[in-house]
Amino acid sequence: MGVPLFKELHRAYGFDEVAIVPGRITINPDMTSTEMTIASHRFDIPVLASAMDAVVSPSLADLMHKKGGLGVLNLEGIYTRYEDPYTVLEEIASAPQSTVTDVLQRIYSKPIQENLVGSCVEAIKKSGATCAVAITPQNTKKLSPIAVEAGVDILTVQSTVTTAKHVSKSYKGLVFSKLIEQIKVPVIVGNCVGYSTALELMETGISGILVGVGPGAACTTREVVGVGVPQVSATIECAAARDTHFKQTGKYITVITDGGIRTGGDLCKAIAAGADGVMLGTPFAQAQEAPGAGFNWGMANPHPNLPRGTRINVRTTGTLNEILYGPTSVTDGTRNLIGALKVAMGMCGAFNIKELHKAEMIIAPSIKTEGKAFQLASD
Amino acid sequence: MGVPLFKELHRAYGFDEVAIVPGRITINPDMTSTEMTIASHRFDIPVLASAMDAVVSPSLADLMHKKGGLGVLNLEGIYTRYEDPYTVLEEIASAPQSTVTDVLQRIYSKPIQENLVGSCVEAIKKSGATCAVAITPQNTKKLSPIAVEAGVDILTVQSTVTTAKHVSKSYKGLVFSKLIEQIKVPVIVGNCVGYSTALELMETGISGILVGVGPGAACTTREVVGVGVPQVSATIECAAARDTHFKQTGKYITVITDGGIRTGGDLCKAIAAGADGVMLGTPFAQAQEAPGAGFNWGMANPHPNLPRGTRINVRTTGTLNEILYGPTSVTDGTRNLIGALKVAMGMCGAFNIKELHKAEMIIAPSIKTEGKAFQLASD
Amino acid sequence: MGVPLFKELHRAYGFDEVAIVPGRITINPDMTSTEMTIASHRFDIPVLASAMDAVVSPSLADLMHKKGGLGVLNLEGIYTRYEDPYTVLEEIASAPQSTVTDVLQRIYSKPIQENLVGSCVEAIKKSGATCAVAITPQNTKKLSPIAVEAGVDILTVQSTVTTAKHVSKSYKGLVFSKLIEQIKVPVIVGNCVGYSTALELMETGISGILVGVGPGAACTTREVVGVGVPQVSATIECAAARDTHFKQTGKYITVITDGGIRTGGDLCKAIAAGADGVMLGTPFAQAQEAPGAGFNWGMANPHPNLPRGTRINVRTTGTLNEILYGPTSVTDGTRNLIGALKVAMGMCGAFNIKELHKAEMIIAPSIKTEGKAFQLASD
Amino acid sequence: MGVPLFKELHRAYGFDEVAIVPGRITINPDMTSTEMTIASHRFDIPVLASAMDAVVSPSLADLMHKKGGLGVLNLEGIYTRYEDPYTVLEEIASAPQSTVTDVLQRIYSKPIQENLVGSCVEAIKKSGATCAVAITPQNTKKLSPIAVEAGVDILTVQSTVTTAKHVSKSYKGLVFSKLIEQIKVPVIVGNCVGYSTALELMETGISGILVGVGPGAACTTREVVGVGVPQVSATIECAAARDTHFKQTGKYITVITDGGIRTGGDLCKAIAAGADGVMLGTPFAQAQEAPGAGFNWGMANPHPNLPRGTRINVRTTGTLNEILYGPTSVTDGTRNLIGALKVAMGMCGAFNIKELHKAEMIIAPSIKTEGKAFQLASD
Repeated sequence: MGVPLFKELHRAYGFDEVAIVPGRITINPDMTSTEMTIASHRFDIPVLASAMDAVVSPSLADLMHKKGGLGVLNLEGIYTRYEDPYTVLEEIASAPQSTVTDVLQRIYSKPIQENLVGSCVEAIKKSGATCAVAITPQNTKKLSPIAVEAGVDILTVQSTVTTAKHVSKSYKGLVFSKLIEQIKVPVIVGNCVGYSTALELMETGISGILVGVGPGAACTTREVVGVGVPQVSATIECAAARDTHFKQTGKYITVITDGGIRTGGDLCKAIAAGADGVMLGTPFAQAQEAPGAGFNWGMANPHPNLPRGTRINVRTTGTLNEILYGPTSVTDGTRNLIGALKVAMGMCGAFNIKELHKAEMIIAPSIKTEGKAFQLASD
Repeated sequence: MGVPLFKELHRAYGFDEVAIVPGRITINPDMTSTEMTIASHRFDIPVLASAMDAVVSPSLADLMHKKGGLGVLNLEGIYTRYEDPYTVLEEIASAPQSTVTDVLQRIYSKPIQENLVGSCVEAIKKSGATCAVAITPQNTKKLSPIAVEAGVDILTVQSTVTTAKHVSKSYKGLVFSKLIEQIKVPVIVGNCVGYSTALELMETGISGILVGVGPGAACTTREVVGVGVPQVSATIECAAARDTHFKQTGKYITVITDGGIRTGGDLCKAIAAGADGVMLGTPFAQAQEAPGAGFNWGMANPHPNLPRGTRINVRTTGTLNEILYGPTSVTDGTRNLIGALKVAMGMCGAFNIKELHKAEMIIAPSIKTEGKAFQLASD
Repeated sequence: MGVPLFKELHRAYGFDEVAIVPGRITINPDMTSTEMTIASHRFDIPVLASAMDAVVSPSLADLMHKKGGLGVLNLEGIYTRYEDPYTVLEEIASAPQSTVTDVLQRIYSKPIQENLVGSCVEAIKKSGATCAVAITPQNTKKLSPIAVEAGVDILTVQSTVTTAKHVSKSYKGLVFSKLIEQIKVPVIVGNCVGYSTALELMETGISGILVGVGPGAACTTREVVGVGVPQVSATIECAAARDTHFKQTGKYITVITDGGIRTGGDLCKAIAAGADGVMLGTPFAQAQEAPGAGFNWGMANPHPNLPRGTRINVRTTGTLNEILYGPTSVTDGTRNLIGALKVAMGMCGAFNIKELHKAEMIIAPSIKTEGKAFQLASD
Repeated sequence: MGVPLFKELHRAYGFDEVAIVPGRITINPDMTSTEMTIASHRFDIPVLASAMDAVVSPSLADLMHKKGGLGVLNLEGIYTRYEDPYTVLEEIASAPQSTVTDVLQRIYSKPIQENLVGSCVEAIKKSGATCAVAITPQNTKKLSPIAVEAGVDILTVQSTVTTAKHVSKSYKGLVFSKLIEQIKVPVIVGNCVGYSTALELMETGISGILVGVGPGAACTTREVVGVGVPQVSATIECAAARDTHFKQTGKYITVITDGGIRTGGDLCKAIAAGADGVMLGTPFAQAQEAPGAGFNWGMANPHPNLPRGTRINVRTTGTLNEILYGPTSVTDGTRNLIGALKVAMGMCGAFNIKELHKAEMIIAPSIKTEGKAFQLASD
């Protein structure tokens, strides 16, 4: 109506707002392959465990490897600050709620010990697992050579928002193309959410990209700083960037949706939206074998005056094997994630992950309707 | 904005999000006909009872017939596994909540007895009712000849998602056109949700189609595997396929919306969206005469590692007659479903089901607003 | 995507989903006129009280007249069935909740006494008030001559859905044009919701139209039979019909939004959406002077097997004067409805109702956000 | 469908419905400038404290100045009605809930004392702070010369809805262009929400505009009179007006989003939507130093018969410094608002406020999902 356009708003969608449409052919779940590839590394299942201290310890990384996935170790957390991280984990788990924030601040104020960086990598390599570690951009120049020297397989450079160009006074901006040239190890970079940013990152020579900034509707990043994009739309944009980049270069970058995935349904939707893999935190913090012992907490380096990660009681709900492969009598979708993925692939006639990318999706909000609670799966 | 389209999302709608618009003429409800036809079988009311063990027993099938509708017997459940199903039903109803999943798994692990397949069909036929039975695709080749031999009238082949082409290692894909040629009994197939899939199924020679995959916002299929389409949109697509098929072949396939219908309002919306009939589970599990005795539970053959149907206490709320025809003093729409349908038809000026298909519908979300609770029907 | 269009769904809006945009000029509320006209009758305020037994008695009709509005008496309720309606009202108010449905069914089964029809009208006329009464289409031919004979000023013919053409076996369809020719009294007809239906009704010669079928998201009509249109969209359509009819004939029909209005905000939105007046039930049942004594219940003639109106405790919240004109310390918008209207008109620069019709409206859902409860009016 | 368009409804958005998209470059938060300018006055942070008695006293205005922002004193409240306002504030804070409305009505019925107007301004000036005061249009002609005489720096003329043209019987309409010519002090005017209204106000020569009418979904103005526009859309429209006006005249008017901002996320979204600054009430009423002592209440001059502001217990949550600059262990976004803004600017690659205006925003509703409560910031 004659009003000049100052800003146009487009709708973005999250997991709870979409659903996958069954395909025109169906296949038996046992005929599907859930294989994921990152650079030359092949994985039976398209699942990474988040680089959080409560989720991935060196031994959990080994277990994830045995289960077919990949655990990413946080190289700036407890495991590289303490000779005996397990005592520290116990201290966090047993701290009363009233003092836990102080406890966490004290624990994470101890400096990273460079010798532990190397020995963590070596411990994982020795177990026979593919070794992936996560570093923040600030510490990449210092820590990445040590990790590479120790034999790391995949390096993840991760901060809340990552772009191909970061401006900083305090450290000279990390240039991914130079890093990759130097270290000669596949690099995964994140997190990002947009087509252009993803494309620019891909052009630096990375092997994988982590998708997700403030993904959840209840996410702290969105509440505190207002920034965030729901994961389905973010994944669709980054998948589009991957396809553009593949068309231009012939190189296929692995797109990994990171954050906000709680159920098998979320996982299936992330992949149908274009992800090649997913990264899960809390669902694995709930595993019996997780180092967090039923708790989870945020990473160590937020803005000094913004809230540090608080410890959250996520409860232990089963073994890692049960969470990934079942069996389960729970109907909320938090167990047997891979079984769920194979069933969804069967319903969509997708023999592999790339075929699931072609599944049709619809917008279909899942507002919980209390009054209609006793609906049956087959009703 | 220059972003290549990786995936487009269209909006789909469920019962709670739409409403029917009154017509330009109105008629008295007593002048409406609710007749439904499946192949050559005619029914006074467009209502099928779901093939669930808690909903349809041979005697309930007879009662549904007397009330004008059609009860579909699950041919792979308790009635064909046990000589005395009623003791088994009692065991399920009286099992404590803590052990009921184990009880159900044990009960359904007993193999189907082929002799009981025949005698179930015969029992329904003897009562004078139209006999419809449901089989899964895996067991169709084995069980359908027995059912046909025993005199079955209508065969329902049903799994969570059905397409005209299923790929499997473990059993040779069921070809519906061949099945129909062989058994010479009308076949209903389901479930499906999309225009193309529905059209391809219709082209195999079936007589009816069941619409509904993961219909409910709170549905387990959507939570666990992320797959599902809300029923109003699914019904509109399948009705479009029916009309296309009718134009091409002159054969009118019965479209039956199956799942997610809880109230008279839902039922009316399903039919206004294009359904020729509806299939109800839980609303009939609530009937005094239902075999489930106030409980309902899922069917017997889910993915081995995904959750099996849990037993749900749906409570007995009235007789089957009250649920279908009233009278009622309940205002939540769960009773007198047929009375509600006739009132809706009257408001839309629809003398029959096909005229109700022409009713205008709108998108009008029914978010429950607590604070405005004491709204009156006539206010 | 090549799917033939079986049915298109358009979005319709209710009060909770829209808001009025302030105008480019503002005026002082004391300079606004809220005048409404029905045929040759002029009213200071655009407000009718619903023809419900708990809302309008002959004396309440008189009081509404003194306050500037119009009370419509239900001519098929208690006042025309009982010589002494006040004892009956007391019986309803004092019945325990468990038996009240039976009490209501018994009370309303007593036949209408034609002599009381006349004396009700005369009682209202004697008080000096404009006399409006409501009749159902079924009883119009029988009761309207009596009412006219007794001096009624305005006749309302009202059923859940009314069209210019109703088909019935049990009584010969009411032809409004003939009725109007015969009785020579202005006729208000309702309820309706669509442009075409409203236009066809207007062409019969009526003076006013009641807008609203199943308006509320939680409305019984929508829950039970699935039929309904939110009031903002329904009002916009009927206002469009009024303007079309005015352009074609020069006759201005009064459009009255009936149902779903609970607050001053709702009232303002109804008028901004195009209504010339509003009809309120529950808000007036809450008046100290209302015959329902803090209760409200549905009208007497629903479908015999669908739920009859249950008695609802709406609580007495103030005098009729306070509800219409304040003062109030309540901030939920249920008091001082006319003050609110005048403030809204001031904010929109509307000197009268027709100017408020030109106000811009936006879609702006009012989802209650618990966590943000302590928001201030001026914050 | 042939229905003439009576009224078209456009969608408007609030803070809870949008999110900011990270940019293609990122910068370190410590490199950002949050500077705001009003006429020739420069402020380190783009934050004003609302002209509410519970929020800004003369000493709070001084404190806001020291913290880099601007406190606006209500010139028609307690501070200009009472020699000793602090006793009065104590009386309000200690009144029992049952009588507080009466207490407030009595307190605000005492007339404004013109000598206190001058001494309030002088007190703020003496402290060294920039002095801004708020007056209603009705009292502007009387009070503004006194304030100017006493040395006021910025004059805010504020009512619920303000336009360039107000029609009134009781006082001759205030002409902003004449006022500005006379008083020779920068004038901020509000509140308004639309492009045309904002542009017309800007053309009168004002220096700033307050954006916000009935902004919150739970806002009393929307509930009571139905008028309101969500803040994101309102800010976008007023920012468009600012840019148009700047293009036409070269004069840059400060756009200040006023109302509905509760968290750092809301603040960031307001600025990304085009605001040059924000005005906060309740968040500052929660400061230890706020005059309201943990309470807040509406301004003094609503419609006599509409509800007066009730006193609301907002609780004291921290010092003003903590609210603006942290540190905080609270994760709900209510503390360290400026830290949050700088982080958001960093994520968007915005070195200053005007660059944040260019950030992309999306529609992404933040429906709280109870069942998914334990989501982590970095998960």
